[in-house]
Amino acid sequence: MNYNSFTDRQPFGAVLVGTTITWNLKPSEEDAIWLLLYRDGYWDKPDRIAFVHQASGWQASATLPDAGLWYYGFESRRTDQTTWYGCVDGGFGGLGQNYADFNQLQRYQITVMAQTETIPDWWHNALVYHIFVDRFSNGNADGHVLAPKPNSFIYGQKTDRPYYIRDSQGEIVRWDFYGGNLLGIQQALPLLQARGVTVLYLSPIFEARSNHRYDTGDYEKIDAMLGDLDQFKAFVQAVHHAGMHLILDGVFNHVGADSRYFNAVGDYPNIGAANRRDSPYADWFTFKHFPDDYASWWGVRDLPAVNKENQDFHHFIAGSEGVVNDWTALGVDGWRLDVVDELADDFVSAIRQRLNQFPNRLLIGEVWEDASHKIAYGKRRTYFQDNQLQATMNYPLRQLLLDLIGQRLMPEAFIRQLMTLKENYPAVIFDHNFNLLDSHDTPRVLTTLNGNLQQLQAIITLLFTLPGNPVIYYGDEVGLVGGPDPDNRAFYPWGHENQAVLAMYQQAIQRRYTQPALDNAASWFPFSFVGGVGYLRSSEDQRLLIVVNTTPQAQHIVNPDLTLVPVHLRQYIPLNRGLEPWATLVAEIQ
Amino acid sequence: MNYNSFTDRQPFGAVLVGTTITWNLKPSEEDAIWLLLYRDGYWDKPDRIAFVHQASGWQASATLPDAGLWYYGFESRRTDQTTWYGCVDGGFGGLGQNYADFNQLQRYQITVMAQTETIPDWWHNALVYHIFVDRFSNGNADGHVLAPKPNSFIYGQKTDRPYYIRDSQGEIVRWDFYGGNLLGIQQALPLLQARGVTVLYLSPIFEARSNHRYDTGDYEKIDAMLGDLDQFKAFVQAVHHAGMHLILDGVFNHVGADSRYFNAVGDYPNIGAANRRDSPYADWFTFKHFPDDYASWWGVRDLPAVNKENQDFHHFIAGSEGVVNDWTALGVDGWRLDVVDELADDFVSAIRQRLNQFPNRLLIGEVWEDASHKIAYGKRRTYFQDNQLQATMNYPLRQLLLDLIGQRLMPEAFIRQLMTLKENYPAVIFDHNFNLLDSHDTPRVLTTLNGNLQQLQAIITLLFTLPGNPVIYYGDEVGLVGGPDPDNRAFYPWGHENQAVLAMYQQAIQRRYTQPALDNAASWFPFSFVGGVGYLRSSEDQRLLIVVNTTPQAQHIVNPDLTLVPVHLRQYIPLNRGLEPWATLVAEIQ
Repeated sequence: MNYNSFTDRQPFGAVLVGTTITWNLKPSEEDAIWLLLYRDGYWDKPDRIAFVHQASGWQASATLPDAGLWYYGFESRRTDQTTWYGCVDGGFGGLGQNYADFNQLQRYQITVMAQTETIPDWWHNALVYHIFVDRFSNGNADGHVLAPKPNSFIYGQKTDRPYYIRDSQGEIVRWDFYGGNLLGIQQALPLLQARGVTVLYLSPIFEARSNHRYDTGDYEKIDAMLGDLDQFKAFVQAVHHAGMHLILDGVFNHVGADSRYFNAVGDYPNIGAANRRDSPYADWFTFKHFPDDYASWWGVRDLPAVNKENQDFHHFIAGSEGVVNDWTALGVDGWRLDVVDELADDFVSAIRQRLNQFPNRLLIGEVWEDASHKIAYGKRRTYFQDNQLQATMNYPLRQLLLDLIGQRLMPEAFIRQLMTLKENYPAVIFDHNFNLLDSHDTPRVLTTLNGNLQQLQAIITLLFTLPGNPVIYYGDEVGLVGGPDPDNRAFYPWGHENQAVLAMYQQAIQRRYTQPALDNAASWFPFSFVGGVGYLRSSEDQRLLIVVNTTPQAQHIVNPDLTLVPVHLRQYIPLNRGLEPWATLVAEIQ
Repeated sequence: MNYNSFTDRQPFGAVLVGTTITWNLKPSEEDAIWLLLYRDGYWDKPDRIAFVHQASGWQASATLPDAGLWYYGFESRRTDQTTWYGCVDGGFGGLGQNYADFNQLQRYQITVMAQTETIPDWWHNALVYHIFVDRFSNGNADGHVLAPKPNSFIYGQKTDRPYYIRDSQGEIVRWDFYGGNLLGIQQALPLLQARGVTVLYLSPIFEARSNHRYDTGDYEKIDAMLGDLDQFKAFVQAVHHAGMHLILDGVFNHVGADSRYFNAVGDYPNIGAANRRDSPYADWFTFKHFPDDYASWWGVRDLPAVNKENQDFHHFIAGSEGVVNDWTALGVDGWRLDVVDELADDFVSAIRQRLNQFPNRLLIGEVWEDASHKIAYGKRRTYFQDNQLQATMNYPLRQLLLDLIGQRLMPEAFIRQLMTLKENYPAVIFDHNFNLLDSHDTPRVLTTLNGNLQQLQAIITLLFTLPGNPVIYYGDEVGLVGGPDPDNRAFYPWGHENQAVLAMYQQAIQRRYTQPALDNAASWFPFSFVGGVGYLRSSEDQRLLIVVNTTPQAQHIVNPDLTLVPVHLRQYIPLNRGLEPWATLVAEIQ
């Protein structure tokens, strides 16, 4: 038998709970076929549903009664021999394979949501600009750095490369700052607006000791190096006035050792958990041995982990007068949850519920893998099925793009794996996902590409024509380079912008937000060929053909795999079309 | 026999060439005594001068015909047995000892000068303030740092402790700056003036990459972080207007690898020695292997050493239009020669000769030992005998004071060793020497004393009542603490001055410059007792008694050793006087 999950199951992709799914198999010589339908985790008792043989082929249906993940495979019998059919190794959708041994069977996934996911209007066709705030712009006319922290260092020049100041044991002993602040971002709003940016995502801005501020010191204070509360309010107003929206970084898995809550070094006047066992924050943390040995994020002593189930902390963050509420009430439009995999499900749900009290808010999560079936700490996460997250950082797409352009991944595998994300993610999420080429946690894209501008052109073309919301990590658009952390956190190169790179981005942005067929809602029909990938984007008003030669050799579009392109559209794929090395083709189809 | 070089040789101490010296020995039962007089280095052929026996004792005389060091001992015969007499082990003057074996004989030293040394008037009763310029004061009203260097760091706060930024190999990879500058010092002149400072000694101020600037990049430019040429001129004028004088740090043994002359990293547009073998500076340096392996100061690759005998470099520095000339012509009053032990004698003489072209200039050297007989690179240095240096950094005094107060040195040994310096140094130099308790190369005195303010009071009392010119390393007077480099280079604690320490200094300074008996020219007659030291200072107008209990126990002045106190003055030593622990007594004698 033969089955392609992308085409032979209706409806395609993630479904709402209670949806009836129909599987259609082509005519074949089996004597009988059964659908084996599994509730996630119940691997020994599948529902066994017989396919009905019709002239057009085999058909079976099932209604999925509960939200969560469901899995399926097929059993078939022919002349008394039983075989099984499931997805290929790796759990990717699309065409599967036969299994002679039931125990080897890999099952297809169906994501079943409790409710239809929605996103705020402003997240439709958003262009996100991700700013590492210390490194973007210092708004003070005289260039002075606001409120430098004790025992910290300020870079002598903005063009200095970032450097961690470590002692001989490799511990960071002094934090390094450039002095970017809110006013600097505010002053750059017209420029960002002109570039097409509609959403700002800022790295953490609450009081903290480090330059990255993932070590929160006080969730209720803007870090003094960035500005004060009034400055923040003015900033939010300016962002909104520019027609933009603001996403903050919510770091709710751990705090700084040097925080109001833990207070390891006694910088805060109150009693932190590390100060006395009867601290009001004592239950937030777990001490193996008080006060020196405590649970921390990945063993980083600077980041004591908050107990996942601590209801007091959950209430402090997600309660009706909690951290999320208060900042959101000031006009924050969305939150990106740092290491969301580490947060308890009910905590993430509580944060989402809190945001739902406000109109048009957004919750995004940091997930490095396919977020639809992520398992963390032995437990399946319920980001999508329970309507927790409205987008995730699309690191899987980043990896696919870099592997494709780096020729470590065949075009057909790229399409299969990207289609698998589309199949597994709720459609509204896949179509509006947080699509990034890099971040503060990865090398910069131009550095990963060894400065190859042809490859950059190709990858930008893909990013800005694929479904989802493109994200620009500050400075990428002007050719800022940088290897792994901290080199990827250089200061924005004011006055030294690479105009050739900027022109690439500007062209891609211009097209992305003016062509109807590149709207988040437009259809996407991908195909692959030896040497590249392509797709048709289709809206009511327009059809676009996008083709990219993902190799350094000239290519022709020969024998493309058009399985995923509707039959009536296949005529628009220009067969035997020649493509220069790394060529990108974006053409409107009349 | 019995001989005390401090009392039994006339004249005492260093003498001018051609002086006739007389040795007087007390009556004794020897049959014959000879003076063995050695020219430095000619140990196998002493002049052998017979003593004449008189009623008052034995007497011999000799005239010293050449400048340099001369040495002497005694040979005596009694009933056909020959013994020898010389100084105690360590080469200290004062009482000596008998030697049964001629080969063990330690000889006394006589320093013989080519000419009488002179010093400028302003160096008489000078109070020196030693400033590490990056660490004293930033004169910009808004606190901004002038011209931060590429790939450098600025301390976040002035109260941060200094820290070297090293890579995992321990190499300094980024230089750290606080941003002190000339304008900051200029603005502090009234304050320093009020404290009694009369001379500023600045750490290097020429263009360099590091914060200490001992790695000169360009001898002809003020470092842009400190100001420009106009600022320097205004600064010199302001110093003089405040009645003060200015000593610069002359670093003429090595340059920075990142310099106009060596140019290892190519920061300078000209051709440095590391750039091409035919660089105009090629002969200044010695390459074992061009361009990577070169002679450097103590193997510090950042500091390529200049060939000691290179006449082109000597001329560049000491020539009639050289570095020393040009800055001196702008009003610099004196120079302190860094690592003078490493400079060729004729180079030091040339610098002194250059300074002698200007009225009232001063040349000081960095010497850590007794500079009268220092041997460097197998050669006796001629700082004093050839009238090169007018003062040296009195690290030997520092060591004696700290050892005395730290109870590692007995009071009598302290007096003997300090008297030995007085004996060996030309009187004008001993009486006007650069007397320091610490510097940028040592821990700060208060830290060495573990914060003990009683000990600090004792050591300050000694410093400010002993012969010589006291030097205050910036911040010491307000209690700044700091261990070894870089901790001893903290920023001046503006707004956090330790008033108790300041009061100690102010009292000591006030006394030092108002009491005639503490004038540089006043006599000094020291004595010791169990538990302390004392001395009489005597001028035409005044006599002062100074006594310090250098122990943590109460003491009485019992059986003091009054050998060095003239008989008619001994009545003023208050026998059996009780002294509290660490007590300091300064009393005028009517």
